[in-house]
Amino acid sequence: LGDSARVPYGTRSPDTVRRYAWNCSRFLVDRGLKMLVVACNTVSALAIGALSEGLEVPVLGVIRAGARAAMKHPGVGRIGVIGTAGTVQSGAYVRELSQLARDVQVFQNPAPLLVPLVEEGWIVGDVPHLAVRRYIAPLVEKRVEVLLLGCTHYPVLRPVIEEEMRALNSTAVVVDSATSMAREVYDALAEQNLLSRRNDNGTLQCCVTDLPGNFGESAGRFLGRSVGHVEKVDIS
Amino acid sequence: LGDSARVPYGTRSPDTVRRYAWNCSRFLVDRGLKMLVVACNTVSALAIGALSEGLEVPVLGVIRAGARAAMKHPGVGRIGVIGTAGTVQSGAYVRELSQLARDVQVFQNPAPLLVPLVEEGWIVGDVPHLAVRRYIAPLVEKRVEVLLLGCTHYPVLRPVIEEEMRALNSTAVVVDSATSMAREVYDALAEQNLLSRRNDNGTLQCCVTDLPGNFGESAGRFLGRSVGHVEKVDIS
Repeated sequence: LGDSARVPYGTRSPDTVRRYAWNCSRFLVDRGLKMLVVACNTVSALAIGALSEGLEVPVLGVIRAGARAAMKHPGVGRIGVIGTAGTVQSGAYVRELSQLARDVQVFQNPAPLLVPLVEEGWIVGDVPHLAVRRYIAPLVEKRVEVLLLGCTHYPVLRPVIEEEMRALNSTAVVVDSATSMAREVYDALAEQNLLSRRNDNGTLQCCVTDLPGNFGESAGRFLGRSVGHVEKVDIS
Repeated sequence: LGDSARVPYGTRSPDTVRRYAWNCSRFLVDRGLKMLVVACNTVSALAIGALSEGLEVPVLGVIRAGARAAMKHPGVGRIGVIGTAGTVQSGAYVRELSQLARDVQVFQNPAPLLVPLVEEGWIVGDVPHLAVRRYIAPLVEKRVEVLLLGCTHYPVLRPVIEEEMRALNSTAVVVDSATSMAREVYDALAEQNLLSRRNDNGTLQCCVTDLPGNFGESAGRFLGRSVGHVEKVDIS
């Protein structure tokens, strides 16, 4: 479910994010789920506690997976995080990373314009390069060894981000939560004996609250393949 | 009232814009108004008919005022309009300008990234200049004589827009709806015998649906002065 009638969440208050996250989650759980993955860093940072307590299925967020991906690189002491204003202000990544390694140093910078850039498809050229440089320069100055992409939109800009890191003479590794999130979902399903017994790849069903056509296009850009029919739903 | 819990409207579908516009207008009219000004181009373009029919007070939108401001320049034949995707797709400016002068030619280009740039306060420097250039270049190529700023955020970028027009060797005049809107409100109040009989400047009351602090800051940037206390309200 993409709440395209109310995105972006990253610039809103914690209370508003929690209210919207609750609407979305309730809608999905009522459709019959065995597990809910909150694939948005802002919601994971601000609402995962409330959702886990209030919903009757296991809930996994992307913050822990992102933190684990960052800590996979042995000996890492200085980690940079870019994310939405909401994610950065929540301090969720700082808490999660500090739990994984007590002596890690975390440097954050909100990068709010990257979301509209990706939504507009401005992912090559001067504008994304200049915006990315402005956001990562303060983190490169702190000599971070890992740069964690703390927003699900940012991996689309990974080539730009990596090029700008090199241009600023940083050798930091750029990581995101995707692979480690998928692994975490598998492990959680296995642990709770929820793995499917069917021997196929399952199906993908996409719902949005507005403009299914635009979502289909964006999703194609993110995933490099079509997501098929996108259903418009009313969750209010 | 600023619906900061659900902005931006310019990227949403007509149905969603109408639903949100109705919420906001109902809330304001229920507080007791003698007139409602829709100071958003997207809502004016997509919902002014529904609001005028459904509400019990006169409703004025910014599209007509913007079109009149553009036509003030005698002999104008070619007009460029930048606005949100919603405003441009609605064709509202094309209709309104054609009613004022049958032989006018209107060229439009959506400029969606300018809203987040202004919201982030990136109103000087390379990024706004490059983004503005990209949006206005196709209109300059059409040799427009007037460039109409069809979104209430854009006047904040007027210095950048005017500089880029000059850099592209255009001598077009840049106009927005603000002054002609104020005049239209005065005329409509006078015509309907609704002018205040009190002899003071009135008071400004600002409400938002999220993050009153951020709104206060942005409004200061737009207006060049403080707007005083901002009230957070729930309109859902």
